[in-house]
Amino acid sequence: MGPPERTLKLVVAYDGTDYAGWQFQQGQPSIQETVETVIARITGQHSRLVGSGRTDAGVHAREQVASFRTSTHLSTAQFHRALAAELPEDIVVRDVEQVADGFHAIRDCVAKRYRYTLEDSGARDVFQRRYVWHVRRRLDERAMAAAAASLVGRHDFASFQTHGSARRSTERTIHELDVVRNKGEGDVETVLVDVEADGFLYNMVRSIVGTLVEVGRGRRPPEWVAEVLAARDRRRAGMKAPARGLCLWSVTLRQVVGVPDGIRDV
Amino acid sequence: MGPPERTLKLVVAYDGTDYAGWQFQQGQPSIQETVETVIARITGQHSRLVGSGRTDAGVHAREQVASFRTSTHLSTAQFHRALAAELPEDIVVRDVEQVADGFHAIRDCVAKRYRYTLEDSGARDVFQRRYVWHVRRRLDERAMAAAAASLVGRHDFASFQTHGSARRSTERTIHELDVVRNKGEGDVETVLVDVEADGFLYNMVRSIVGTLVEVGRGRRPPEWVAEVLAARDRRRAGMKAPARGLCLWSVTLRQVVGVPDGIRDV
Repeated sequence: MGPPERTLKLVVAYDGTDYAGWQFQQGQPSIQETVETVIARITGQHSRLVGSGRTDAGVHAREQVASFRTSTHLSTAQFHRALAAELPEDIVVRDVEQVADGFHAIRDCVAKRYRYTLEDSGARDVFQRRYVWHVRRRLDERAMAAAAASLVGRHDFASFQTHGSARRSTERTIHELDVVRNKGEGDVETVLVDVEADGFLYNMVRSIVGTLVEVGRGRRPPEWVAEVLAARDRRRAGMKAPARGLCLWSVTLRQVVGVPDGIRDV
Repeated sequence: MGPPERTLKLVVAYDGTDYAGWQFQQGQPSIQETVETVIARITGQHSRLVGSGRTDAGVHAREQVASFRTSTHLSTAQFHRALAAELPEDIVVRDVEQVADGFHAIRDCVAKRYRYTLEDSGARDVFQRRYVWHVRRRLDERAMAAAAASLVGRHDFASFQTHGSARRSTERTIHELDVVRNKGEGDVETVLVDVEADGFLYNMVRSIVGTLVEVGRGRRPPEWVAEVLAARDRRRAGMKAPARGLCLWSVTLRQVVGVPDGIRDV
């Protein structure tokens, strides 16, 4: 008899540029499938990997959380090294931990934080080009911050999803939505939009960013964003910002109970 | 008659990952050829582009300087915008300036600075992966800095070139060679090797870095590097560090005389 089944939690970073998103999609490379394939190669078993955030095509992650069940005989440290050796270089597993059975990366996720990076100087940082949305003219980040304030709290965000089922609630709670200017390399400046919520509708961050950019460009006053929110009509919002600027920054979990894996590391 | 010929100076940044280097190479994409082709498309004339540093395949640049002569009717600002629109996204022109005739990016370059980035934590920063050499074990950066001190000054660096002509002098002056540890994202740490010299032999920075890494790994004592230098024999040095971690950081020019382009910007 092999070792009993246990639950492992991964923290995963990735450059989403060359993937069709986190979730498995027939005929296209996904992060989930790529990691599942490597796990199967290492453990000899197929394990279903669940991720806290279903990032879309081209969206990146700094700290995605994922979980799966396995009866591998490897210690977490051995398994971590095996993953590092087998994964392509645009996916990095930052941490492997054994957790209490029953842990589930979606059910135990209580909040997620995303960062959207706008590059709004004339100058471009060639080394950051895959991770920013470059807009030509300088944005008014103060107007954007003022507009953002109206979105914080519990609201119906139906205006900020690109599609969804009528049966599901479109209420979510945004805990924090900050817009700040950041000095980059040389002449490059960026505007960072950091948003934390208990959950997100489909394309919600990119719709919010696209709407705030309308304000930052001076095409709409800050008050307009509250009107868009109140309308509960997605046709009222700004364009969906491109995927490349978006990064799943971190995931807040319900208390995670770490469990020693009881397997001697070699 | 068109406008008279004038000399333009460019400051160029690029991600060298997908190029065979700065210099034109038959049948392979080079930075020089890519930029020359775009200049020809914009101006309707072929101009020969001269770069201060002939970066090798896979090596990056933050501030490469290049010059060429043209009789375009475009102002520097118009020309800059045209370049931005036409160049691939891994090459960014940061500045365009008209300079006194006779300026030449190689002859007027008095010093160049390179940065080499070593990632030596177990952790990898997925977003920096194209720009670092990831080494598995932690380096002793103090031993490396001590070893580096013996290379500063005017020396015959024949041990630190991978090939060269017997006729050319292999003496160069290193003005500065610093090795410092830098905290990165999360658990990621890097060791930065910054080197400024009046000129560099072929693969000199990568040979120096490979040699310092031998010391950083504890395989050789710091004093060994002075012995390698004194030997004037390239078989004595450490391995050549990979291209991906190397970046042409900046170029110091003999006094550049900027000239107003006298063309009205539209």
